Amino acid sequence: MNRVRTAAVLGLGLIGGSLARDLAARGVRVLGHDRDAEALRRAEAAGVVHAALDDSLEGLEAAEVAVLAVPVAAAPALLETALPRLGGARLVTDVGSTKRGIVSAAETMGIGTRFVGAHPIAGDHRSGWDASRAGLFLDTRVYLSPAPSSLPEARVLAEALWRWVGSAPEMVDAEVHDRRLAWTSHLPQAVSTALALALAEGGVSRETLGSGGRDLTRLAGSSPEMWTGIALENAAELAVAAVRVEGQLRRLREALAASDAEGLLRYFEEGRAWFEEGTHSPCMGGSGMVRWQRK
Amino acid sequence: MNRVRTAAVLGLGLIGGSLARDLAARGVRVLGHDRDAEALRRAEAAGVVHAALDDSLEGLEAAEVAVLAVPVAAAPALLETALPRLGGARLVTDVGSTKRGIVSAAETMGIGTRFVGAHPIAGDHRSGWDASRAGLFLDTRVYLSPAPSSLPEARVLAEALWRWVGSAPEMVDAEVHDRRLAWTSHLPQAVSTALALALAEGGVSRETLGSGGRDLTRLAGSSPEMWTGIALENAAELAVAAVRVEGQLRRLREALAASDAEGLLRYFEEGRAWFEEGTHSPCMGGSGMVRWQRK
Repeated sequence: MNRVRTAAVLGLGLIGGSLARDLAARGVRVLGHDRDAEALRRAEAAGVVHAALDDSLEGLEAAEVAVLAVPVAAAPALLETALPRLGGARLVTDVGSTKRGIVSAAETMGIGTRFVGAHPIAGDHRSGWDASRAGLFLDTRVYLSPAPSSLPEARVLAEALWRWVGSAPEMVDAEVHDRRLAWTSHLPQAVSTALALALAEGGVSRETLGSGGRDLTRLAGSSPEMWTGIALENAAELAVAAVRVEGQLRRLREALAASDAEGLLRYFEEGRAWFEEGTHSPCMGGSGMVRWQRK
Repeated sequence: MNRVRTAAVLGLGLIGGSLARDLAARGVRVLGHDRDAEALRRAEAAGVVHAALDDSLEGLEAAEVAVLAVPVAAAPALLETALPRLGGARLVTDVGSTKRGIVSAAETMGIGTRFVGAHPIAGDHRSGWDASRAGLFLDTRVYLSPAPSSLPEARVLAEALWRWVGSAPEMVDAEVHDRRLAWTSHLPQAVSTALALALAEGGVSRETLGSGGRDLTRLAGSSPEMWTGIALENAAELAVAAVRVEGQLRRLREALAASDAEGLLRYFEEGRAWFEEGTHSPCMGGSGMVRWQRK
């Protein structure tokens, strides 16, 4: 990885800003862009961004690696703006929580050979440059979804880049990624917000919750713009997952209405069995929804 | 509180065991009971329980304070067993997550003058003696729900007892308590289990979740027996709260199905507004459900 001398990070939020910090700390010259001029200025002042790119992205030509680090809904347009200036890039990548859209956009724009999408499983509910920090990716996983026409060199470089900042790469098809993440990431976010909104309806403030309730509602503090884009792009898969939670809550209510002690015990027991085993209990079935596990 | 020389802790799980540890550390002679003979033996071996009581509770007569620390469904029967031996007790209390049932049982059994129910907001998803620890109640809140006929002396003693182990008492009517906790504690538990069960249906194991998803599913590891009792006792209030979460998830799914970007943005924005303000956003209404706040 010390062969990469110049990288561009387009978008200096929690993920982009943290990646820029790690790259700068490893001696990479970082070209930075952000729609927020003040964030860009602070990234320069911190010595993380060595050259600021304006909205035209003039100067991007020098980047060997270009990283799109904006909300998924904004990434294709940013890629289109960047496209004429990516002649020198050996790798073009992103950091979004959905992969189908951007991988397909990159392929369509003819840059698929050098495009490997990335989704680092890092960060929390905070967002923006001020939330960024060095070492964010240490001991994390990053999913890499190459464009169909991607060349081995681009894939190898993507893996090396993320390993360099401490993350363990896992190659996964974009479709499979999105289906998987609907359950492992987008559903927990949706449920956290649903609980927050229900508590709002009930007139309950977050301060009155115990530690469990606070854990459950932390994600509700995440960036609405970011999650709107993710939800839109992964709408069908997320809906399939969300309806299962509704079904389980209905099951609970039916047991409550019937004072069904056995049914309630099973509800909590099956939940704990999943928690303890880290797998679905035999009685839960689940066939037909595990396609992504059989890849 | 140094006037209390002997206290009985009946049930040596996470809460009872931790309270017994704190009392023993403060020089109180602790009489202990647990249906699990092995847990009782370990509590004695640890020097926390100074005298073990068998199922007849013979010897309980010496206790100035008696604490029922068993699942809420088991507490009334335990109180009935203990009743003939509570002549020396100045305070009889419990630690359950619902208060109506035990307070009403105590009143009916004629021990209301000396009964002040307690609900410490402490602990986590773990249970049993092995999960107990000294200092569990430091900087926590404890709700105290006195029986209608309770005497001031019992209430003062209950407050002093919990302050002694580091907890901040708040007196609250049992009905109000249960309505409030349906939202702040029982609902988060129910939602955590619902998410766990949905993930089980989806064939998703807990290890594949990010930190947010793991936070959301931690409570699913809680004691099924304990939560079955709580859910049964607070069934109506919990159902009212659970249906709100279902409604919010349905709202999300409708926005997803319609590719309604504005609707999705509002969903996540209102959730974040609640998170940030610690209060319900003006647009959420919520009238009629905030009775307990107006007490």
